[in-house]
Amino acid sequence: MPRLKLTLEYDGTRYVGWQVQPNGVSIQARLRQALEQLLGEQVELEVAGRTDSGVHATGQVVCFGTPRVLPLKAYWKGLNGLLPEDIAVVRAEEVPPEFDPRRWSHGKRYRYRVSNRPSRSPLRRFTHWEVFSPLDVEAMRRGAAHLLGRHDYSAFRASDCQAAHAVREVRRVDIQGTSGEEVSVTVEGTAFLKHMVRNLVGTLVEVGKGRRPDTWVAEVLASRERKRAGPTAPAHGLVLEEVFYGDGPPPRTPGGTADGDDEE
Amino acid sequence: MPRLKLTLEYDGTRYVGWQVQPNGVSIQARLRQALEQLLGEQVELEVAGRTDSGVHATGQVVCFGTPRVLPLKAYWKGLNGLLPEDIAVVRAEEVPPEFDPRRWSHGKRYRYRVSNRPSRSPLRRFTHWEVFSPLDVEAMRRGAAHLLGRHDYSAFRASDCQAAHAVREVRRVDIQGTSGEEVSVTVEGTAFLKHMVRNLVGTLVEVGKGRRPDTWVAEVLASRERKRAGPTAPAHGLVLEEVFYGDGPPPRTPGGTADGDDEE
Repeated sequence: MPRLKLTLEYDGTRYVGWQVQPNGVSIQARLRQALEQLLGEQVELEVAGRTDSGVHATGQVVCFGTPRVLPLKAYWKGLNGLLPEDIAVVRAEEVPPEFDPRRWSHGKRYRYRVSNRPSRSPLRRFTHWEVFSPLDVEAMRRGAAHLLGRHDYSAFRASDCQAAHAVREVRRVDIQGTSGEEVSVTVEGTAFLKHMVRNLVGTLVEVGKGRRPDTWVAEVLASRERKRAGPTAPAHGLVLEEVFYGDGPPPRTPGGTADGDDEE
Repeated sequence: MPRLKLTLEYDGTRYVGWQVQPNGVSIQARLRQALEQLLGEQVELEVAGRTDSGVHATGQVVCFGTPRVLPLKAYWKGLNGLLPEDIAVVRAEEVPPEFDPRRWSHGKRYRYRVSNRPSRSPLRRFTHWEVFSPLDVEAMRRGAAHLLGRHDYSAFRASDCQAAHAVREVRRVDIQGTSGEEVSVTVEGTAFLKHMVRNLVGTLVEVGKGRRPDTWVAEVLASRERKRAGPTAPAHGLVLEEVFYGDGPPPRTPGGTADGDDEE
Protein backbone atom coordinates (compact mmCIF):
# COMPACT_ATOMS: atom_id res chain seq x y z
CA MET A 1 0.00 0.00 0.00
CA PRO A 2 1.68 3.27 -1.09
CA ARG A 3 2.45 5.78 1.65
CA LEU A 4 2.52 9.45 0.68
CA LYS A 5 4.22 12.45 2.24
CA LEU A 6 2.83 15.85 1.28
CA THR A 7 4.48 19.19 2.03
CA LEU A 8 1.90 21.95 2.45
CA GLU A 9 1.84 25.73 2.33
CA TYR A 10 -1.12 27.53 3.84
CA ASP A 11 -2.38 30.93 4.82
CA GLY A 12 -3.83 30.18 8.26
CA THR A 13 -5.89 33.38 8.49
CA ARG A 14 -9.31 31.83 7.83
CA TYR A 15 -8.78 28.58 9.77
CA VAL A 16 -9.09 27.32 13.34
CA GLY A 17 -5.67 25.70 12.88
CA TRP A 18 -4.56 22.27 11.74
CA GLN A 19 -6.74 20.24 14.11
CA VAL A 20 -10.48 19.72 13.59
CA GLN A 21 -12.37 21.98 16.04
CA PRO A 22 -16.09 22.51 16.70
CA ASN A 23 -15.89 26.29 16.17
CA GLY A 24 -14.72 26.60 12.56
CA VAL A 25 -13.02 25.04 9.57
CA SER A 26 -9.63 23.37 10.03
CA ILE A 27 -6.86 22.89 7.49
CA GLN A 28 -6.96 19.14 8.16
CA ALA A 29 -10.68 19.00 7.32
CA ARG A 30 -10.12 20.84 4.02
CA LEU A 31 -7.26 18.54 3.04
CA ARG A 32 -9.23 15.41 3.97
CA GLN A 33 -12.14 16.65 1.86
CA ALA A 34 -9.90 17.22 -1.19
CA LEU A 35 -8.19 13.82 -0.73
CA GLU A 36 -11.57 12.10 -0.48
CA GLN A 37 -12.59 13.71 -3.77
CA LEU A 38 -9.33 12.59 -5.37
CA LEU A 39 -9.22 9.04 -3.97
CA GLY A 40 -12.90 8.22 -3.53
CA GLU A 41 -12.19 7.10 0.05
CA GLN A 42 -11.45 8.66 3.42
CA VAL A 43 -7.84 8.73 4.61
CA GLU A 44 -6.33 9.16 8.06
CA LEU A 45 -3.79 11.97 8.13
CA GLU A 46 -0.68 12.04 10.30
CA VAL A 47 0.95 15.44 10.74
CA ALA A 48 4.45 16.57 11.76
CA GLY A 49 3.12 19.27 14.10
CA ARG A 50 -0.27 20.84 14.68
CA THR A 51 -0.48 24.56 14.02
CA ASP A 52 -2.74 26.87 16.00
CA SER A 53 -5.49 29.10 14.64
CA GLY A 54 -4.01 31.88 12.47
CA VAL A 55 -0.54 30.27 12.21
CA HIS A 56 0.78 29.85 8.66
CA ALA A 57 3.00 27.20 7.07
CA THR A 58 5.29 26.96 4.08
CA GLY A 59 6.56 23.48 5.00
CA GLN A 60 3.95 21.55 7.00
CA VAL A 61 4.30 17.78 6.47
CA VAL A 62 1.43 15.28 6.38
CA CYS A 63 1.39 11.60 5.64
CA PHE A 64 -1.17 8.91 4.77
CA GLY A 65 -1.50 5.47 3.24
CA THR A 66 -3.88 4.56 0.45
CA PRO A 67 -4.55 1.39 -1.56
CA ARG A 68 -4.93 3.52 -4.71
CA VAL A 69 -1.91 3.85 -6.96
CA LEU A 70 -1.80 7.29 -8.58
CA PRO A 71 1.04 9.23 -10.23
CA LEU A 72 2.69 11.69 -7.81
CA LYS A 73 1.42 14.54 -9.97
CA ALA A 74 -2.14 13.70 -8.87
CA TYR A 75 -1.19 14.54 -5.27
CA TRP A 76 0.34 17.77 -6.32
CA LYS A 77 -1.28 19.36 -9.38
CA GLY A 78 -4.47 17.33 -9.02
CA LEU A 79 -4.98 18.02 -5.33
CA ASN A 80 -4.19 21.72 -5.81
CA GLY A 81 -7.15 21.94 -8.15
CA LEU A 82 -9.40 20.60 -5.39
CA LEU A 83 -7.99 22.62 -2.47
CA PRO A 84 -9.07 26.19 -1.65
CA GLU A 85 -6.72 28.98 -2.76
CA ASP A 86 -5.27 29.42 0.76
CA ILE A 87 -3.98 25.81 0.97
CA ALA A 88 -1.60 24.14 -1.51
CA VAL A 89 0.56 21.04 -1.83
CA VAL A 90 4.07 22.19 -2.74
CA ARG A 91 5.66 18.71 -2.92
CA ALA A 92 4.48 15.09 -2.98
CA GLU A 93 6.75 12.08 -2.36
CA GLU A 94 6.34 8.37 -1.75
CA VAL A 95 7.88 7.28 1.57
CA PRO A 96 8.69 3.92 3.21
CA PRO A 97 5.78 2.22 5.05
CA GLU A 98 7.39 2.91 8.44
CA PHE A 99 7.77 6.66 7.85
CA ASP A 100 6.14 8.62 10.69
CA PRO A 101 6.08 12.40 10.17
CA ARG A 102 6.26 13.09 13.90
CA ARG A 103 8.65 10.39 15.14
CA TRP A 104 10.98 10.66 12.15
CA SER A 105 11.28 14.45 12.46
CA HIS A 106 14.82 15.56 13.30
CA GLY A 107 13.63 19.07 14.04
CA LYS A 108 11.66 22.02 12.80
CA ARG A 109 12.23 25.60 11.78
CA TYR A 110 9.72 28.34 12.54
CA ARG A 111 9.89 32.00 11.58
CA TYR A 112 8.19 34.79 13.46
CA ARG A 113 7.76 38.20 11.79
CA VAL A 114 7.40 41.52 13.57
CA SER A 115 6.51 44.78 11.80
CA ASN A 116 8.38 47.48 13.70
CA ARG A 117 7.13 50.71 12.17
CA PRO A 118 5.48 53.47 14.18
CA SER A 119 2.28 53.13 12.12
CA ARG A 120 0.27 50.07 11.21
CA SER A 121 1.11 48.25 7.98
CA PRO A 122 -1.81 47.11 5.78
CA LEU A 123 0.37 44.78 3.67
CA ARG A 124 1.69 42.98 6.75
CA ARG A 125 -1.53 42.75 8.74
CA PHE A 126 -2.03 38.98 8.28
CA THR A 127 1.65 37.97 8.55
CA HIS A 128 3.35 40.23 11.12
CA TRP A 129 2.90 41.18 14.75
CA GLU A 130 2.82 44.98 14.72
CA VAL A 131 5.10 46.40 17.43
CA PHE A 132 5.13 50.18 17.09
CA SER A 133 7.94 51.16 19.48
CA PRO A 134 11.47 50.67 18.11
CA LEU A 135 13.13 47.35 18.97
CA ASP A 136 16.79 47.05 19.96
CA VAL A 137 17.83 44.19 17.67
CA GLU A 138 21.26 43.76 19.31
CA ALA A 139 19.70 43.40 22.77
CA MET A 140 17.27 40.81 21.36
CA ARG A 141 20.25 38.87 19.92
CA ARG A 142 21.96 38.86 23.31
CA GLY A 143 18.71 37.69 24.91
CA ALA A 144 18.30 34.95 22.30
CA ALA A 145 21.75 33.53 23.07
CA HIS A 146 20.51 32.49 26.54
CA LEU A 147 17.84 30.29 24.94
CA LEU A 148 20.18 28.00 23.00
CA GLY A 149 20.89 24.44 24.07
CA ARG A 150 19.04 21.65 25.87
CA HIS A 151 16.88 23.01 28.68
CA ASP A 152 13.60 22.60 30.49
CA TYR A 153 11.45 25.19 28.68
CA SER A 154 8.54 25.10 31.19
CA ALA A 155 8.62 28.92 31.40
CA PHE A 156 7.68 29.08 27.71
CA ARG A 157 4.93 26.44 27.49
CA ALA A 158 1.21 27.14 27.36
CA SER A 159 -0.69 26.29 30.55
CA ASP A 160 -2.72 23.63 28.70
CA CYS A 161 0.32 22.06 26.98
CA GLN A 162 -0.09 18.25 26.98
CA ALA A 163 3.58 17.22 26.60
CA ALA A 164 4.94 14.68 29.09
CA HIS A 165 7.89 16.92 30.01
CA ALA A 166 9.37 20.24 28.93
CA VAL A 167 12.97 19.35 27.99
CA ARG A 168 13.72 20.43 24.45
CA GLU A 169 16.79 21.43 22.44
CA VAL A 170 16.87 24.80 20.70
CA ARG A 171 19.59 24.82 18.05
CA ARG A 172 19.21 28.27 16.61
CA VAL A 173 17.52 31.58 17.42
CA ASP A 174 18.42 34.01 14.68
CA ILE A 175 17.24 37.61 14.74
CA GLN A 176 17.32 39.50 11.48
CA GLY A 177 16.03 42.81 10.22
CA THR A 178 16.19 46.48 11.08
CA SER A 179 14.79 48.32 14.06
CA GLY A 180 11.99 50.62 12.94
CA GLU A 181 11.27 48.49 9.89
CA GLU A 182 10.88 44.74 10.27
CA VAL A 183 12.42 42.18 12.63
CA SER A 184 12.17 38.44 12.14
CA VAL A 185 13.03 35.66 14.59
CA THR A 186 13.99 32.24 13.19
CA VAL A 187 13.86 29.40 15.71
CA GLU A 188 15.12 25.89 15.04
CA GLY A 189 14.88 23.03 17.48
CA THR A 190 14.29 19.31 17.94
CA ALA A 191 10.67 19.73 18.96
CA PHE A 192 8.51 22.42 20.53
CA LEU A 193 6.04 22.80 23.37
CA LYS A 194 2.64 24.40 22.85
CA HIS A 195 3.07 28.15 22.13
CA MET A 196 6.81 27.84 22.80
CA VAL A 197 7.99 29.92 19.81
CA ARG A 198 5.35 32.59 20.44
CA ASN A 199 6.33 32.77 24.12
CA LEU A 200 10.04 33.02 23.26
CA VAL A 201 9.27 35.84 20.82
CA GLY A 202 7.03 37.67 23.33
CA THR A 203 9.88 37.50 25.83
CA LEU A 204 12.54 38.69 23.37
CA VAL A 205 10.32 41.62 22.35
CA GLU A 206 10.22 42.75 26.02
CA VAL A 207 14.02 42.89 25.84
CA GLY A 208 13.89 44.64 22.46
CA LYS A 209 11.61 47.32 23.90
CA GLY A 210 14.16 47.94 26.66
CA ARG A 211 11.75 46.91 29.42
CA ARG A 212 14.08 44.12 30.58
CA PRO A 213 17.83 43.43 30.27
CA ASP A 214 18.94 40.51 28.09
CA THR A 215 20.00 38.55 31.21
CA TRP A 216 16.34 38.46 32.28
CA VAL A 217 15.77 35.86 29.52
CA ALA A 218 18.18 33.48 31.30
CA GLU A 219 16.38 34.12 34.61
CA VAL A 220 12.98 33.37 33.05
CA LEU A 221 14.30 30.12 31.52
CA ALA A 222 15.89 29.01 34.83
CA SER A 223 12.69 29.80 36.79
CA ARG A 224 10.60 27.31 34.75
CA GLU A 225 7.59 29.49 35.62
CA ARG A 226 5.32 30.55 32.77
CA LYS A 227 4.19 33.66 34.64
CA ARG A 228 7.75 35.06 34.57
CA ALA A 229 7.98 35.12 30.76
CA GLY A 230 6.74 37.80 28.36
CA PRO A 231 3.31 37.73 26.71
CA THR A 232 2.47 35.17 24.01
CA ALA A 233 3.12 36.81 20.63
CA PRO A 234 0.02 36.71 18.37
CA ALA A 235 -0.47 33.65 16.16
CA HIS A 236 -0.57 35.41 12.78
CA GLY A 237 3.15 36.34 12.88
CA LEU A 238 4.23 32.67 12.94
CA VAL A 239 5.13 30.41 10.00
CA LEU A 240 6.12 26.72 10.20
CA GLU A 241 8.84 26.82 7.54
CA GLU A 242 10.41 23.39 7.50
CA VAL A 243 10.37 19.96 9.13
CA PHE A 244 13.73 18.18 8.86
CA TYR A 245 14.04 14.48 8.04
CA GLY A 246 16.88 12.02 7.64
CA ASP A 247 16.87 8.37 6.56
CA GLY A 248 15.06 7.29 9.72
CA PRO A 249 14.00 8.47 13.14
CA PRO A 250 16.53 10.43 15.24
CA PRO A 251 18.16 8.67 18.22
CA ARG A 252 15.91 8.77 21.29
CA THR A 253 17.25 11.45 23.63
CA PRO A 254 15.52 13.55 26.26
CA GLY A 255 14.00 16.45 24.37
CA GLY A 256 14.06 14.54 21.11
CA THR A 257 11.04 14.51 18.91
CA ALA A 258 9.68 11.19 20.10
CA ASP A 259 8.91 12.75 23.50
CA GLY A 260 7.28 15.81 22.11
CA ASP A 261 3.61 16.54 21.82
CA ASP A 262 4.13 19.80 20.06
CA GLU A 263 1.63 22.28 18.81
CA GLU A 264 2.39 25.83 17.81
CA MET B 1 -3.86 77.63 4.89
CA PRO B 2 -1.81 74.53 5.89
CA ARG B 3 -0.92 72.09 3.14
CA LEU B 4 -0.42 68.45 4.08
CA LYS B 5 1.49 65.64 2.42
CA LEU B 6 0.51 62.12 3.44
CA THR B 7 2.45 58.94 2.60
CA LEU B 8 0.15 55.94 2.32
CA GLU B 9 0.48 52.18 2.43
CA TYR B 10 -2.35 50.08 1.09
CA ASP B 11 -3.31 46.58 0.16
CA GLY B 12 -5.02 47.17 -3.19
CA THR B 13 -6.75 43.76 -3.31
CA ARG B 14 -10.26 44.97 -2.44
CA TYR B 15 -10.18 48.23 -4.41
CA VAL B 16 -10.82 49.44 -7.96
CA GLY B 17 -7.56 51.40 -7.68
CA TRP B 18 -6.74 54.94 -6.60
CA GLN B 19 -9.23 56.73 -8.83
CA VAL B 20 -12.97 56.87 -8.12
CA GLN B 21 -14.77 54.42 -10.46
CA PRO B 22 -18.42 53.52 -10.93
CA ASN B 23 -17.82 49.77 -10.41
CA GLY B 24 -16.46 49.60 -6.88
CA VAL B 25 -14.74 51.32 -3.96
CA SER B 26 -11.58 53.33 -4.63
CA ILE B 27 -8.73 54.11 -2.24
CA GLN B 28 -9.24 57.81 -2.90
CA ALA B 29 -12.93 57.59 -1.85
CA ARG B 30 -11.98 55.82 1.40
CA LEU B 31 -9.33 58.40 2.23
CA ARG B 32 -11.67 61.32 1.43
CA GLN B 33 -14.30 59.80 3.68
CA ALA B 34 -11.87 59.47 6.60
CA LEU B 35 -10.55 63.02 6.05
CA GLU B 36 -14.08 64.39 6.00
CA GLN B 37 -14.75 62.70 9.34
CA LEU B 38 -11.55 64.15 10.77
CA LEU B 39 -11.88 67.68 9.37
CA GLY B 40 -15.65 68.11 9.13
CA GLU B 41 -15.26 69.29 5.53
CA GLN B 42 -14.55 67.82 2.11
CA VAL B 43 -11.01 68.12 0.72
CA GLU B 44 -9.65 67.83 -2.80
CA LEU B 45 -6.84 65.28 -3.02
CA GLU B 46 -3.85 65.52 -5.36
CA VAL B 47 -1.91 62.30 -5.89
CA ALA B 48 1.63 61.51 -7.10
CA GLY B 49 0.46 58.68 -9.38
CA ARG B 50 -2.78 56.80 -9.78
CA THR B 51 -2.58 53.06 -9.10
CA ASP B 52 -4.70 50.52 -10.96
CA SER B 53 -7.13 48.04 -9.46
CA GLY B 54 -5.26 45.44 -7.37
CA VAL B 55 -1.95 47.38 -7.32
CA HIS B 56 -0.50 47.96 -3.82
CA ALA B 57 1.53 50.81 -2.36
CA THR B 58 3.94 51.30 0.50
CA GLY B 59 4.79 54.90 -0.48
CA GLN B 60 1.90 56.54 -2.33
CA VAL B 61 1.89 60.33 -1.83
CA VAL B 62 -1.22 62.53 -1.57
CA CYS B 63 -1.60 66.19 -0.82
CA PHE B 64 -4.37 68.60 0.20
CA GLY B 65 -4.96 72.00 1.74
CA THR B 66 -7.29 72.69 4.66
CA PRO B 67 -8.16 75.79 6.71
CA ARG B 68 -8.15 73.65 9.88
CA VAL B 69 -4.99 73.61 11.96
CA LEU B 70 -4.45 70.22 13.58
CA PRO B 71 -1.33 68.58 15.06
CA LEU B 72 0.43 66.29 12.55
CA LYS B 73 -0.42 63.32 14.77
CA ALA B 74 -4.10 63.79 13.88
CA TYR B 75 -3.27 63.03 10.23
CA TRP B 76 -1.35 59.96 11.19
CA LYS B 77 -2.63 58.24 14.33
CA GLY B 78 -6.04 59.93 14.15
CA LEU B 79 -6.66 59.18 10.49
CA ASN B 80 -5.48 55.57 10.90
CA GLY B 81 -8.28 55.07 13.41
CA LEU B 82 -10.79 56.17 10.77
CA LEU B 83 -9.34 54.30 7.78
CA PRO B 84 -10.09 50.62 7.01
CA GLU B 85 -7.40 48.09 7.98
CA ASP B 86 -6.12 47.80 4.39
CA ILE B 87 -5.21 51.51 4.11
CA ALA B 88 -2.89 53.42 6.46
CA VAL B 89 -1.05 56.73 6.67
CA VAL B 90 2.60 55.95 7.38
CA ARG B 91 3.84 59.58 7.48
CA ALA B 92 2.30 63.07 7.62
CA GLU B 93 4.22 66.29 6.87
CA GLU B 94 3.39 69.94 6.31
CA VAL B 95 4.65 71.15 2.91
CA PRO B 96 5.00 74.58 1.23
CA PRO B 97 1.85 75.98 -0.44
CA GLU B 98 3.34 75.43 -3.92
CA PHE B 99 4.12 71.73 -3.35
CA ASP B 100 2.55 69.61 -6.10
CA PRO B 101 2.89 65.84 -5.58
CA ARG B 102 2.93 65.18 -9.33
CA ARG B 103 4.99 68.10 -10.69
CA TRP B 104 7.49 68.07 -7.83
CA SER B 105 8.15 64.34 -8.17
CA HIS B 106 11.76 63.56 -9.22
CA GLY B 107 10.89 59.96 -9.89
CA LYS B 108 9.28 56.83 -8.55
CA ARG B 109 10.27 53.33 -7.58
CA TYR B 110 8.03 50.34 -8.20
CA ARG B 111 8.62 46.73 -7.25
CA TYR B 112 7.10 43.77 -9.04
CA ARG B 113 7.10 40.33 -7.35
CA VAL B 114 7.00 36.99 -9.13
CA SER B 115 6.54 33.67 -7.33
CA ASN B 116 8.56 31.16 -9.34
CA ARG B 117 7.73 27.84 -7.73
CA PRO B 118 6.27 24.90 -9.65
CA SER B 119 3.18 24.94 -7.43
CA ARG B 120 0.92 27.78 -6.41
CA SER B 121 1.75 29.68 -3.22
CA PRO B 122 -1.14 30.53 -0.86
CA LEU B 123 0.89 33.07 1.13
CA ARG B 124 1.85 34.99 -2.01
CA ARG B 125 -1.48 34.89 -3.81
CA PHE B 126 -2.34 38.57 -3.32
CA THR B 127 1.19 39.96 -3.80
CA HIS B 128 2.98 37.87 -6.46
CA TRP B 129 2.43 36.86 -10.06
CA GLU B 130 2.72 33.08 -10.04
CA VAL B 131 4.99 31.90 -12.87
CA PHE B 132 5.42 28.14 -12.54
CA SER B 133 8.17 27.44 -15.09
CA PRO B 134 11.71 28.29 -13.92
CA LEU B 135 12.98 31.75 -14.85
CA ASP B 136 16.53 32.42 -16.03
CA VAL B 137 17.39 35.38 -13.80
CA GLU B 138 20.66 36.15 -15.63
CA ALA B 139 18.89 36.34 -18.99
CA MET B 140 16.30 38.66 -17.45
CA ARG B 141 19.12 40.91 -16.17
CA ARG B 142 20.65 41.08 -19.65
CA GLY B 143 17.21 41.91 -21.07
CA ALA B 144 16.66 44.60 -18.44
CA ALA B 145 19.91 46.35 -19.39
CA HIS B 146 18.36 47.25 -22.78
CA LEU B 147 15.59 49.19 -21.03
CA LEU B 148 17.80 51.70 -19.23
CA GLY B 149 18.08 55.30 -20.33
CA ARG B 150 15.87 57.89 -22.01
CA HIS B 151 13.70 56.31 -24.70
CA ASP B 152 10.31 56.38 -26.34
CA TYR B 153 8.53 53.59 -24.42
CA SER B 154 5.50 53.38 -26.76
CA ALA B 155 5.95 49.59 -26.98
CA PHE B 156 5.24 49.34 -23.25
CA ARG B 157 2.25 51.70 -22.86
CA ALA B 158 -1.37 50.62 -22.53
CA SER B 159 -3.51 51.27 -25.63
CA ASP B 160 -5.68 53.71 -23.66
CA CYS B 161 -2.74 55.59 -22.11
CA GLN B 162 -3.52 59.34 -22.08
CA ALA B 163 0.03 60.72 -21.89
CA ALA B 164 1.00 63.39 -24.45
CA HIS B 165 4.09 61.46 -25.52
CA ALA B 166 5.95 58.32 -24.53
CA VAL B 167 9.49 59.55 -23.80
CA ARG B 168 10.55 58.57 -20.29
CA GLU B 169 13.80 57.90 -18.47
CA VAL B 170 14.32 54.56 -16.74
CA ARG B 171 17.17 54.82 -14.24
CA ARG B 172 17.22 51.35 -12.78
CA VAL B 173 15.84 47.89 -13.50
CA ASP B 174 17.12 45.58 -10.82
CA ILE B 175 16.33 41.88 -10.82
CA GLN B 176 16.76 40.01 -7.56
CA GLY B 177 15.89 36.58 -6.26
CA THR B 178 16.35 32.96 -7.13
CA SER B 179 15.00 30.96 -10.04
CA GLY B 180 12.52 28.41 -8.76
CA GLU B 181 11.73 30.46 -5.68
CA GLU B 182 10.95 34.16 -6.03
CA VAL B 183 12.10 36.85 -8.46
CA SER B 184 11.50 40.56 -7.95
CA VAL B 185 11.94 43.39 -10.44
CA THR B 186 12.61 46.89 -9.09
CA VAL B 187 12.07 49.70 -11.59
CA GLU B 188 12.99 53.33 -10.98
CA GLY B 189 12.34 56.16 -13.42
CA THR B 190 11.35 59.78 -13.81
CA ALA B 191 7.75 58.99 -14.66
CA PHE B 192 5.81 56.09 -16.12
CA LEU B 193 3.22 55.44 -18.81
CA LYS B 194 0.03 53.52 -18.12
CA HIS B 195 0.88 49.84 -17.42
CA MET B 196 4.54 50.50 -18.30
CA VAL B 197 6.07 48.57 -15.38
CA ARG B 198 3.67 45.65 -15.86
CA ASN B 199 4.47 45.55 -19.59
CA LEU B 200 8.22 45.68 -18.94
CA VAL B 201 7.88 42.80 -16.47
CA GLY B 202 5.68 40.75 -18.85
CA THR B 203 8.37 41.21 -21.51
CA LEU B 204 11.27 40.29 -19.19
CA VAL B 205 9.41 37.16 -18.06
CA GLU B 206 9.22 36.01 -21.73
CA VAL B 207 13.03 36.24 -21.76
CA GLY B 208 13.26 34.52 -18.36
CA LYS B 209 11.19 31.62 -19.69
CA GLY B 210 13.63 31.25 -22.59
CA ARG B 211 10.99 32.02 -25.21
CA ARG B 212 12.95 35.02 -26.49
CA PRO B 213 16.62 36.08 -26.39
CA ASP B 214 17.54 39.12 -24.28
CA THR B 215 18.23 41.16 -27.43
CA TRP B 216 14.54 40.86 -28.31
CA VAL B 217 13.85 43.41 -25.52
CA ALA B 218 15.91 46.01 -27.42
CA GLU B 219 14.00 45.18 -30.63
CA VAL B 220 10.64 45.60 -28.88
CA LEU B 221 11.71 48.95 -27.41
CA ALA B 222 12.98 50.21 -30.79
CA SER B 223 9.79 49.09 -32.57
CA ARG B 224 7.57 51.38 -30.43
CA GLU B 225 4.76 48.90 -31.13
CA ARG B 226 2.75 47.64 -28.17
CA LYS B 227 1.85 44.42 -29.98
CA ARG B 228 5.53 43.40 -30.13
CA ALA B 229 5.97 43.36 -26.31
CA GLY B 230 5.13 40.58 -23.86
CA PRO B 231 1.80 40.30 -22.03
CA THR B 232 0.87 42.77 -19.28
CA ALA B 233 1.87 41.22 -15.94
CA PRO B 234 -1.09 41.01 -13.51
CA ALA B 235 -1.76 44.01 -11.27
CA HIS B 236 -1.50 42.26 -7.89
CA GLY B 237 2.30 41.72 -8.19
CA LEU B 238 2.98 45.47 -8.30
CA VAL B 239 3.80 47.83 -5.42
CA LEU B 240 4.40 51.60 -5.67
CA GLU B 241 7.25 51.78 -3.16
CA GLU B 242 8.46 55.36 -3.20
CA VAL B 243 7.99 58.76 -4.81
CA PHE B 244 11.17 60.87 -4.73
CA TYR B 245 11.15 64.59 -3.93
CA GLY B 246 13.76 67.33 -3.67
CA ASP B 247 13.41 70.96 -2.57
CA GLY B 248 11.34 71.84 -5.61
CA PRO B 249 10.20 70.55 -9.00
CA PRO B 250 12.79 68.85 -11.24
CA PRO B 251 14.07 70.76 -14.31
CA ARG B 252 11.66 70.42 -17.24
CA THR B 253 13.13 67.88 -19.66
CA PRO B 254 11.46 65.61 -22.19
CA GLY B 255 10.39 62.55 -20.22
CA GLY B 256 10.46 64.47 -16.96
CA THR B 257 7.56 64.20 -14.62
CA ALA B 258 5.83 67.40 -15.69
CA ASP B 259 5.00 65.79 -19.04
CA GLY B 260 3.81 62.56 -17.60
CA ASP B 261 0.26 61.44 -17.11
CA ASP B 262 1.20 58.24 -15.42
CA GLU B 263 -0.96 55.53 -14.05
CA GLU B 264 0.18 52.07 -13.09
